Amino acid sequence: MPQNPKIVEIISIGEELLIGKVVNTNASWLAKEITKRGGRVRRIITVGDKIDEIRDVIVSSISRGADVIITTGGLGPTFDDKTMEAISRALDKPLKLNEEAFTMLKESLRRRGLTLTESRRKMAYLPEGGRAIPNYVGTAPGLLIKQGKTTLVALPGVPQEMKEMFIKHVSNIVSSEMKIVENELLIEGIYEAELAPLIEELMKKKQGIYIKSHPKMQEEKPRIRLHIYSSQYTQQELNEICREIERIIKDKLKCKITWIE
Amino acid sequence: MPQNPKIVEIISIGEELLIGKVVNTNASWLAKEITKRGGRVRRIITVGDKIDEIRDVIVSSISRGADVIITTGGLGPTFDDKTMEAISRALDKPLKLNEEAFTMLKESLRRRGLTLTESRRKMAYLPEGGRAIPNYVGTAPGLLIKQGKTTLVALPGVPQEMKEMFIKHVSNIVSSEMKIVENELLIEGIYEAELAPLIEELMKKKQGIYIKSHPKMQEEKPRIRLHIYSSQYTQQELNEICREIERIIKDKLKCKITWIE
Repeated sequence: MPQNPKIVEIISIGEELLIGKVVNTNASWLAKEITKRGGRVRRIITVGDKIDEIRDVIVSSISRGADVIITTGGLGPTFDDKTMEAISRALDKPLKLNEEAFTMLKESLRRRGLTLTESRRKMAYLPEGGRAIPNYVGTAPGLLIKQGKTTLVALPGVPQEMKEMFIKHVSNIVSSEMKIVENELLIEGIYEAELAPLIEELMKKKQGIYIKSHPKMQEEKPRIRLHIYSSQYTQQELNEICREIERIIKDKLKCKITWIE
Repeated sequence: MPQNPKIVEIISIGEELLIGKVVNTNASWLAKEITKRGGRVRRIITVGDKIDEIRDVIVSSISRGADVIITTGGLGPTFDDKTMEAISRALDKPLKLNEEAFTMLKESLRRRGLTLTESRRKMAYLPEGGRAIPNYVGTAPGLLIKQGKTTLVALPGVPQEMKEMFIKHVSNIVSSEMKIVENELLIEGIYEAELAPLIEELMKKKQGIYIKSHPKMQEEKPRIRLHIYSSQYTQQELNEICREIERIIKDKLKCKITWIE
């Protein structure tokens, strides 16, 4: 019996994302890594450094029944790092000095020859019942905490820290046996609208296959990148299905099809 | 009397964003353009090509009282372009052939020497009461429709089309007199945690000023990019405030401060 994929929601926290100063590459990196491991990202929500906003999106995400929530950002020592406080309010679990986190924090400060200030000490306060995720790249520990069927993970916003902590400590939580396999075909000489009814038909016929077309114009000539993917087949099975799709398209429309490696 | 900034929520639609195949540069471009014009982006929500998901996020956004909702993606002729259908359900306004949109569509097809197929005709169906936004770069018209105090705008996902349509037909809706002014200071030789209490103090003292610190390590030495911005002051007033902030930091901490142009 194949395991159901984990439904994941990503919450990106930071004013810099809302004013367009920073492109949200953290979310797309996470989405790719989660998808690769057989998880299914359902929503990505970006909010600012406001406790009420962060709390509200976490509460909604839990009530929608997400299996895993991953937040990034807002774990540092500054005034506008409010993620732990918001999680504490969302789960109704008070912030307490977490011994595990405090040990990690002191260790990482010692490694860098830094002193423990009041602002830094704040980073060791986690919602009660939470586990600390070690941060070997930076200073702020992450958080892993359960609420009903949902596992909530809080990671820092600094990409190198977030990535290292996700790979080592979170990736196993989102994994399932239902890995995504994919192929890409380049179709030249026809427009998306001509292909659309055929794709609709193919998707109805081939259960469990997702076909997405990305139109592009090049030197006035139409080109379509056809992305075909599934979490229910092996790569070999998908290749066979794609060869059949190629035949069906060529039978009906005059075009050139190339497989993209 | 300064006008209140428009509260904007961006809804990005497309499976390719949720599987990490595409980085959401549309949202950050929009966020930057809206902020520049004095609008305030409160949330950015990314969902897949599912009618129920799209409908739900639109309904929630309206109930949160957003002044403007901008969706991108899902307006094309294919099977998985479901944005208009989802908006129709969210607003409870049936899809109807919109004469304005139909004229635009036929015109843009003629310009490109394309024929009107059933899939393409679908792009002229808009929720009742909506206005069509012309698309001179591509084919699918956009939508502008009001629901109570909220103005909902639907734009295509293709960046060149989306940008041209936003600048020409949407930017005026999100504009207000409250433009954002900003400065950046580079602070070398101290850690974010040492600066944090001082920033907290400064933000309490200087109402309407937002200070955001972005720490970076360079060759083992700490550097902080300090982003200072406000929508309540002129650039000249902000410069004066920043010079004062510079003095206060230098008085308390041993560091080097450079203004970034």
